[in-house]
This record gives sequence, structure tokens and C-alpha cells, in this order.
Amino acid sequence: MIVAETKVRVRYSETDQAGYVYYGNYAQYYELGRVSSMRQIGHTYREMEERGVIMPVLSMNIKYIRPAKYDDLLTIKTYIKSLPETRMDFEYEIYNQNGELINKADTTLVFISKENYKPVKAPQWFLEALKKAI
Amino acid sequence: MIVAETKVRVRYSETDQAGYVYYGNYAQYYELGRVSSMRQIGHTYREMEERGVIMPVLSMNIKYIRPAKYDDLLTIKTYIKSLPETRMDFEYEIYNQNGELINKADTTLVFISKENYKPVKAPQWFLEALKKAI
Amino acid sequence: MIVAETKVRVRYSETDQAGYVYYGNYAQYYELGRVSSMRQIGHTYREMEERGVIMPVLSMNIKYIRPAKYDDLLTIKTYIKSLPETRMDFEYEIYNQNGELINKADTTLVFISKENYKPVKAPQWFLEALKKAI
Amino acid sequence: MIVAETKVRVRYSETDQAGYVYYGNYAQYYELGRVSSMRQIGHTYREMEERGVIMPVLSMNIKYIRPAKYDDLLTIKTYIKSLPETRMDFEYEIYNQNGELINKADTTLVFISKENYKPVKAPQWFLEALKKAI
Repeated sequence: MIVAETKVRVRYSETDQAGYVYYGNYAQYYELGRVSSMRQIGHTYREMEERGVIMPVLSMNIKYIRPAKYDDLLTIKTYIKSLPETRMDFEYEIYNQNGELINKADTTLVFISKENYKPVKAPQWFLEALKKAI
Repeated sequence: MIVAETKVRVRYSETDQAGYVYYGNYAQYYELGRVSSMRQIGHTYREMEERGVIMPVLSMNIKYIRPAKYDDLLTIKTYIKSLPETRMDFEYEIYNQNGELINKADTTLVFISKENYKPVKAPQWFLEALKKAI
Repeated sequence: MIVAETKVRVRYSETDQAGYVYYGNYAQYYELGRVSSMRQIGHTYREMEERGVIMPVLSMNIKYIRPAKYDDLLTIKTYIKSLPETRMDFEYEIYNQNGELINKADTTLVFISKENYKPVKAPQWFLEALKKAI
Repeated sequence: MIVAETKVRVRYSETDQAGYVYYGNYAQYYELGRVSSMRQIGHTYREMEERGVIMPVLSMNIKYIRPAKYDDLLTIKTYIKSLPETRMDFEYEIYNQNGELINKADTTLVFISKENYKPVKAPQWFLEALKKAI
């Protein structure tokens, strides 16, 4: 299992008039978590695209447990629990600065060739980096 | 069952560098769908807040079936299938201008008092409007 | 002079915890205004990109006169006052549902070839459509 | 003069289909810069609001010099050049990881009481902290 931790401070632009982080903005935090998990194994998502593969999201499931508020310092824990074949699963937990679990989510992404927009297998170089770290 | 239909044209700001609508932005479309379903029964979400109740989202589940692209004219179908008690469920389907189903989702919201931020039951005036329409 | 009018209803996601539309989100409204002004002369910005030209923004100046609030029904007036050569100027006024001017802005955009990312002149087909309407 | 430096990495959500940071999203970077300049003098914007004052933006002027791209590591330099009375001016420069100036902007904000939404003078505690640092 790979676990990556990322810190993010809530921006004013991410709040809504209820005084909470807008529920759609958590997707950005999961994205930061995924990017961080890839950096941890020595790669970046930028590199994935430069090597010809994009990773659109197929599904996302979110539980909103407590609200996040402006200026909160959040910790995003991102979990990779299995090796991808044509799809890749990520799980996320978000904690606030008091250590409270405020949000849980999972996403499934797919590997797509930038050339023909068809699904492909996870790139070999990426799989090898994952195998070393998992 | 209440079914509300809303049209929305994809904004440039909603796309990302993959050329698709960013996966987190669909939450805005569901919000437009919910608002539209409330207008259909003669009320607005603005009114809900003015009457002292906010409705944060507790959970959201999304299936991304096909990408939405810049300038696409999307139709959001919003379904209310049961009367709320302390929670309210919405289901959504999004179709593109070719009539293709591109996205499915559901959300559960909770009724919260603006005064003390505690859960409350669905307001009576709202329930009555729902009962007439459902 | 070309004047285009567009209506937009403020989304919940566009507000911030002050209860106003977040100041960065007005750029989306100007974009809607530009797109609307292009539709008015028989074209779309989508078409511009499909024909190989993108139009990044070079400068933007905004005066925030009154706040816009959730669910407000805004009218965006977009003005094209001169024919573009390598740059194109747009001016904007935003009014709320009470007819109050709440925002004024101008932007300058540049025509860029999608092939080599170099500046180009305004496409001939676009100039001709502008000339007829201006 | 106060100069604050903040680093921010461009998020995927901040790009658009042209492959650049969407022009409206720079407002978020300036907000990060302002927040950082306030932290540097020992305070936070969160504190400002908790003490009863909000600071809406009155005007913003931006020059987009070069595009910012996904995963770029930007440096936001925020300048406070004069003490505020009822309004406060900030200037910004954004540099990419190659040290290139990519964006320049200025904003004017106003101090507003949260109680009655009327303009007020800059709070004394804030002025004193500014005077020590400027």
C-alpha cells in the first residue's frame, strides 16, 4: 500500500456563502493527493501526459463528514492499495488541523492514449515505480 | 416522482487541459439541477436559506460515462423520488446535445438550521410543495 | 458598435463566505459576454478554435461597483467598439435584476495560431462578420 | 514597503482547454499573495473577519505577460507600498520556475464592517502591525 500525505490550506475562493468549502471543490483536493502520491514514487502526472497518457476520472464517491472552513490547514491522505491494469483506484481521507476526519472519498481513473483517445494499459515505467513502492 | 430539466452550456472556464469538463465541475451542474427542481415546485433554494435552513451535501456518487466538452449544450435531469425527512436525496442524469447520457450521479443533503447549525426536519412549507408535485 | 446582452444567474459555487460573488469569478461572466457577442454575428468561439486560432487574454481591468449575490439574475452587456487587427478589445457592463450597474470591465485579447503559438491577424471570415454588424 | 513571497503550484483544475491557466484564476493567486503578506506582519485575513471587518475588492488590473501551465511552480510577490486609510492597495508580480515574469497586477480593497456593511477605516491593530513592517 502506498500512502501519501499532502497539506493544503483552504482558499477564500473555495468557500461558499454557507461559510464552508463548496462541495465540488473537494475534487481539487483529491487531485492534489493523487499528484502527491505520484511524486512520492518518483514521477509526476505532468510526465504521464508528456509521455502520451491522460487519466480521466470514471467514478467518484464522497462522504462529507464535517465541513472544511476558510484558512483550515487540511491534510489529504491518499491511498493506493492495488496495482492498476486498465483502471486505477485511489482512496482519500481528509483531516483538519485538529486531527478530525472530515471527508472520505474514492475515485477510479482510466488510462487513455492522447493519440487516439482509446483506453490503454497502465504504462510499464509507471507500474514498475508503483511495484517498488507498494 | 419529480423530474426537472435544466439546460446549461459548458463554459471555457469549466474545461481543463485535457479538453474535457474538469471532473469536479459537475457538482455545479447538479446544484443547477437541484435549484431547478425547487423552482419547479414554486420555491427557490435562496428562499430556503432566507427562511433559516441551509442544505449541505452529505454524500455524492458520480459515474462519468462520456466527456463533456466546451460549448456543449447539456441537459441536466434531476429526480426527486421520495419525500425528505431529515435528509433529501436527488438523482441526476446529464445528456449532451446528441441525446447521449454522459453522466449519472446522486447526492444526499441534510437540512441544517442557520441559527445553531444543528440538523432539523424538512420545513413544512417545503414538504407540502413537494407532496403536491411528487 | 456591437452590443450583446447575456443573462446569467449567479450559482452557489460562485459565492464566497462573504456572501458575494468571488471577485475572480467575474472573468467567467465576461467570457460568457464575449461568446454571446460572437454568436450575435453568426459565429462561435468554438469555431474560432476549430479553425486554428485561440484568443488568450492580454489584459483585464475591473471596477467592482456593487456586490452580486447568490441567485441574482445578471445582465452582461458586451461592447465591441472597433475592428481588431492583431488584438481585440471588449468592454463589459453588468447589471443586476434591479437595473443597477454593478460592474464594469474591459479586456484585450490577442489572436494566436494553434499551430505555432505565434500571434496572427484576426481571421478574414471573422473580420467580415464583424464589419457587417458593427 | 512590504514584500511577501508565496509559492503555489498550478493545479490541473486551474487550466483550461488551451493548456494555460484560465485567466480568471489568477485572482486566486493574488488572494494567496495578500494572505501571505498579512501572515508576514503577524496576522491573518481570517482574523480580520473574526474581528468584524471584511475586505471586498474594488478594482483589479491585470497584465498577462506569459502563460502559466499545469504543474508550474509559481512565485507570487506581493507589494504593500503605502499605509491604508479606508482603502488598501496591493501590487503583484508572478514569476515561473525559470524566473520569468509572467503576470503583473494591482488591486484596491476596501474595509467594510461586517455588522452594517458600511466602509470603515483600517483597524488600528492592523495599521500598527503594518507600520512596524513597512
